Amino acid sequence: MSTAASDHSAIPDVVTDVSGERLARAATIGRGAPVLAFDVGGTDIKSALFDADGTAIGLRRTPTPAGGEDAPERLIDRLVELADELRTQHPEIVPAAIGLVVPGIVDEQAGIGVFSSNLGWRDAPIRDLAAARFGLPVAFDHDVRTASWAEHVLGGARSYENSVVLIIGTGVAGAILIDGRPHTAGGYAGEIGHSPIGDWPCPCGARGCLEAIASAGAISRRYAEASGAHVGGAKEVIALAADGDEVAARVWNEALDALTMSIAQLTAVIAPEAVVIGGGLSRAGGALFDELRSRLRARLSFHRIPTLVPAELSGNAGILGSALRARELAGGGAA
Amino acid sequence: MSTAASDHSAIPDVVTDVSGERLARAATIGRGAPVLAFDVGGTDIKSALFDADGTAIGLRRTPTPAGGEDAPERLIDRLVELADELRTQHPEIVPAAIGLVVPGIVDEQAGIGVFSSNLGWRDAPIRDLAAARFGLPVAFDHDVRTASWAEHVLGGARSYENSVVLIIGTGVAGAILIDGRPHTAGGYAGEIGHSPIGDWPCPCGARGCLEAIASAGAISRRYAEASGAHVGGAKEVIALAADGDEVAARVWNEALDALTMSIAQLTAVIAPEAVVIGGGLSRAGGALFDELRSRLRARLSFHRIPTLVPAELSGNAGILGSALRARELAGGGAA
Repeated sequence: MSTAASDHSAIPDVVTDVSGERLARAATIGRGAPVLAFDVGGTDIKSALFDADGTAIGLRRTPTPAGGEDAPERLIDRLVELADELRTQHPEIVPAAIGLVVPGIVDEQAGIGVFSSNLGWRDAPIRDLAAARFGLPVAFDHDVRTASWAEHVLGGARSYENSVVLIIGTGVAGAILIDGRPHTAGGYAGEIGHSPIGDWPCPCGARGCLEAIASAGAISRRYAEASGAHVGGAKEVIALAADGDEVAARVWNEALDALTMSIAQLTAVIAPEAVVIGGGLSRAGGALFDELRSRLRARLSFHRIPTLVPAELSGNAGILGSALRARELAGGGAA
Repeated sequence: MSTAASDHSAIPDVVTDVSGERLARAATIGRGAPVLAFDVGGTDIKSALFDADGTAIGLRRTPTPAGGEDAPERLIDRLVELADELRTQHPEIVPAAIGLVVPGIVDEQAGIGVFSSNLGWRDAPIRDLAAARFGLPVAFDHDVRTASWAEHVLGGARSYENSVVLIIGTGVAGAILIDGRPHTAGGYAGEIGHSPIGDWPCPCGARGCLEAIASAGAISRRYAEASGAHVGGAKEVIALAADGDEVAARVWNEALDALTMSIAQLTAVIAPEAVVIGGGLSRAGGALFDELRSRLRARLSFHRIPTLVPAELSGNAGILGSALRARELAGGGAA
């Protein structure tokens, strides 16, 4: 199961090297208190200091420690090491708070990592563990909800008080913004990737999940299974479909139909002004957005069809959101 | 199309006669300002005064004027007549505000009936028309959202800050309560009956709508079509299914599967604590609730499955909600 797994790790164009030489695009959160931010994924951890100008300093990506019995403790050990390295390299930046976001089911109010198969924990008191080790206030939240928050404050969702952010990568994760506030329901809301739209089995144990047919991961896997040919990713399947490959066209068409169905449901039930789409698949551009727009119009009737917009912060949304959350805790706010 | 049409008119056990002798069950909203409340449906209008104790006085049901060119004006004419009759019969009750709820797509903030096929209007400024004729402040809202609000304040949803109320009758209508407040999205949210879960045609023009397969209306219609036999309603189809009628069993099974799919989606996306089910179909009791509970468990995995509870206010929810809304406007509040 990869509940609400973010796909940040699949995005190469925001990787920065260990020295922090290459700063990611758009990596600024405005003026405020300096903070230290982490975006923990199943594969790697992004870490950075954010200075008083809101610029990311020393942003880098390092592997996530393997899961297991004491996964939460070993993760915090690793975060402390990363923090020490950053502080040694940039002693002039003294963080006032820590931002820490993780995947899975997250109860951000209680500070609990309720469940993560990737990170290997259940009901882990991550926030308190981190706060005790760092001796600093820790803003703890869910990776995709935080990334969506960053899209709302700084990115593609900033014009909308009511939106849904869909991150379509290895999995499909979502976050819901209602009247300018995230709707989380104790961590259980926004599981659009594991919302049923059909009757096929999903590795999560449920039936008919969107993610099993429409994530970038599912698209390449389903093409490989049906054709026997290896592909580098969903992007390749989409290109093959455009070139007349029938198997690729069928797999891509089924993914588009599934995404259309899901967005149509969101339209009828929540009626967001906008659906902001990020993650690897969003880079398919018109092949994705134009198709979804015309299929939505064909499927719905009196409904108010939302504006479909690409996410803007790309793989940086998670760590920018983490820094924004830390700022809120430090009282610095976003500029 | 019967977007969000309430099924209040299908509920016989709350009808009161013209003299107001028989008061409906639970028809009290607590102490506060006296108000006059209307619940306008496609077939009939419920009207009542609510006194300072919050008791419904003179509650009755009368036919809705036919739609047409000047439908909004003719409706208001009829409401004024009803109000005059009530005031003549009960001169001691002087209403401080009017509650007026209607079906269709309703923008309650702008006071506009955006669309109603039953009542025959589009972008009708109902609230201002009514306020001008009555010379009193008018609380204007959507019938099912208001009924759901009453379920939240007085009925089955009162223990939950986050819930979805589903009214399954002639159609399927829904309302969403998030953090104790209705989520309306300018009138477009909560169209659960017209949220797609399959690929069949729906009279609304969209494809795969829940209502076309799982409303009480659809269940009797589909049984009649498949069997050639006439039935009095969904209740009869459910009874036939229990008695071994194969066509009835299939129709009922498909309705249950469709409702399960819809509630599963709500669970994954909004994660309400409770789904409150009202309308004619909710009186199927265990045949509905027990089935939905076990099918939800079978279909989902890590999700937080909501408590399924029956609505409590039955056909009174709309007019009680209308009165509550009027109270809010009059500054009296619910006790």
